Amino acid sequence: MTTFQKPSVPADLLALDAIDPLRHKRREFTLPDGVIYLDGNSLGAMPRTVPTRLAHVAAQEWGQQLIRSWSLTGPAEAAQDWMGLPDRVAAKIAPLIGAEAREVAVGDSTSVNTFKVLVAALKLSGRRVILTDGDNFPTDLYMAQGLSTLMDSLEVRRVSATEISAHLTSDVGVLLLTEVDYRTGRRSDMAAITAQAHEQGALTVWDLAHSAGAFPVDLNGCGADFAVGCGYKFLNGGPGAPAFLFAAERHYAQATVVLSGWMGHAEPFEMARDYVPAPGARRFLVGTPQVLGLSALDTALDVFANVNLSDLRAKSLSLSRTFMETMAPLQSRFPLTLVTPQNETERGSQVSYRHPEAREVMADLIRAGVIGDFRTPDILRFGLTPLYHSHADIWQAVQEIGAVLEARS
Amino acid sequence: MTTFQKPSVPADLLALDAIDPLRHKRREFTLPDGVIYLDGNSLGAMPRTVPTRLAHVAAQEWGQQLIRSWSLTGPAEAAQDWMGLPDRVAAKIAPLIGAEAREVAVGDSTSVNTFKVLVAALKLSGRRVILTDGDNFPTDLYMAQGLSTLMDSLEVRRVSATEISAHLTSDVGVLLLTEVDYRTGRRSDMAAITAQAHEQGALTVWDLAHSAGAFPVDLNGCGADFAVGCGYKFLNGGPGAPAFLFAAERHYAQATVVLSGWMGHAEPFEMARDYVPAPGARRFLVGTPQVLGLSALDTALDVFANVNLSDLRAKSLSLSRTFMETMAPLQSRFPLTLVTPQNETERGSQVSYRHPEAREVMADLIRAGVIGDFRTPDILRFGLTPLYHSHADIWQAVQEIGAVLEARS
Repeated sequence: MTTFQKPSVPADLLALDAIDPLRHKRREFTLPDGVIYLDGNSLGAMPRTVPTRLAHVAAQEWGQQLIRSWSLTGPAEAAQDWMGLPDRVAAKIAPLIGAEAREVAVGDSTSVNTFKVLVAALKLSGRRVILTDGDNFPTDLYMAQGLSTLMDSLEVRRVSATEISAHLTSDVGVLLLTEVDYRTGRRSDMAAITAQAHEQGALTVWDLAHSAGAFPVDLNGCGADFAVGCGYKFLNGGPGAPAFLFAAERHYAQATVVLSGWMGHAEPFEMARDYVPAPGARRFLVGTPQVLGLSALDTALDVFANVNLSDLRAKSLSLSRTFMETMAPLQSRFPLTLVTPQNETERGSQVSYRHPEAREVMADLIRAGVIGDFRTPDILRFGLTPLYHSHADIWQAVQEIGAVLEARS
Repeated sequence: MTTFQKPSVPADLLALDAIDPLRHKRREFTLPDGVIYLDGNSLGAMPRTVPTRLAHVAAQEWGQQLIRSWSLTGPAEAAQDWMGLPDRVAAKIAPLIGAEAREVAVGDSTSVNTFKVLVAALKLSGRRVILTDGDNFPTDLYMAQGLSTLMDSLEVRRVSATEISAHLTSDVGVLLLTEVDYRTGRRSDMAAITAQAHEQGALTVWDLAHSAGAFPVDLNGCGADFAVGCGYKFLNGGPGAPAFLFAAERHYAQATVVLSGWMGHAEPFEMARDYVPAPGARRFLVGTPQVLGLSALDTALDVFANVNLSDLRAKSLSLSRTFMETMAPLQSRFPLTLVTPQNETERGSQVSYRHPEAREVMADLIRAGVIGDFRTPDILRFGLTPLYHSHADIWQAVQEIGAVLEARS
């Protein structure tokens, strides 16, 4: 537990909090006392409704209704229709990412979903080159590498983020990018890059791990082809929550479903010998839906029900601006290098600094009650979650960062 | 709710229950009143410890400890080391299937795991033919079909179960079989078939969906190469529980890891650009562990801690024998055809009958409080779970089956 010192929060920040249209959302989350949690981009905080939902799923839906919960129908019992759960969660995620519900499939992990859409996109492109950022989140790189064990002529071309445009040549089949870099927080221009890829005949796979739920994403507005995203970061679905994927309507009917499991079959319980895909993106489901994880994610997503996504983005930027401005004096006293873009259009919902002892500094910070992330080799990463952070939180966190850096110097 | 009629349970069955060494296990499960649940091979009943564990995971591990739960160490806090959770669950499953803990990976679905081990086995074999039972559980067939979209020359050869031996020719790379047929309950001779496959230079992938937790399985004793299995049937892990896979120690170091996600990396948080597999079967993990599902499965597996697996098998056979004997008089009065082998060595832990109106009969039975499964085209399937069924349950269920068939005739 941390005791925060004087001086007190500046009046201009308190004024921003007083007019914050999202200030009432914080009480929908459980947050530990004595902690400022700046790691919702690693694991989102728990919405308060989750324990009750899980208790109901276990004791009633599983314990009492047993297999009858797979198919219960009717409005009063809708929450027990486990077969429909992936579709209900997809319908809640779709408006956050600019997609139609039928273009979204919820299940498996981001990694597994990346594999599915990489195969679908490559097959549609008819080409054998995946172009990606060499500093992309490792599992994206690894899944592409794994695919190359099955596709002998597949090339995974890794270049630096700044050279993507220059390498978008006419042999590229799929451009695999994460919209917001997990280390720097740099946000790519999805619309422009997607258009450039299409000019070269390539399809796009966007990883929305640090986008979905952090700010409005407009996949269809950008002409995106495929996307994947994480349920446990800004969507607050809990540790290891089911992930999602997006397949644009113009693609899914022609897309190869490489992980063609029975839950993606048009008639799973007919037990036919041959795979026939379900309509829409549901064909990308594979095994039995993870009911516990899906139920937690389903109830967690309700915190977005009355959130204006423009407000969410405006507050996120206001928080990151406040973070940077409050940190600025520390940069002249300590070896901190801001790596997050100051240009707001290029910024996700985090602020990161390089520090030569980042690993040790973050350990000290966590002990002091400010929870962020260390990311190799030397990154201090602070995630900003507009649903539960105030400007006062940000200011207080920076005071603690200053105290920790001072104590180490 | 069902009111069971006279006559009362025969004394010989009550005597069997009185000396049942597993009779105390039933109180470790939640079972609804007024129901005889013969569908533990579709979704196992809930162990009583699950709700408390889930409540702790949500409120404490997630809600209060947040990302710190990924790496907490020390004996008192071991249950919060989420990174170690897949390995801890693997260590509980391993003795049930005759494997070493390091040969088992827990996560994803049975379907996805089937894909992983099919690729690994095919690559090791150097061949391009998967031989399987055409009546295998559909998702096994579908996953093999999906793989063939990436391996142009791959042939998925489907033959009838009785012709497997005759088709084990020297071009077969992988033999993909489910040990216990999900419809008939017929159990294959894993040791003999594996030996025959090896003689032809083929590797085996055994699906243990209806085996693990139902009776002792001895993968290493049978010389099995790879296996997959389900967490939510006889392991009672809850709806959509994480699945498992087995990779024999002699194989995993050479095995291709096609779904090479960051959680199967030797050092996931070093964020290296290239995939380096973790030691042991953990390399087959892909994305972030499903903590809610894994936690439920972890606590559910504790019901096996003090179970002698020979007792489990003996009771399962006694229950299925009782079921068949009590049903026998009904077979002369109604169009029921037993499809489960009467030879005990060929029997899993279920009894199934064909009936021309099986779908409607099962619907009536479920309404009457006897929950089994309908399986296309005409199968009535009754799962026997020695941990929570008594012989009296079986006898009472058959009385109800008789009453339902009588009412329909």
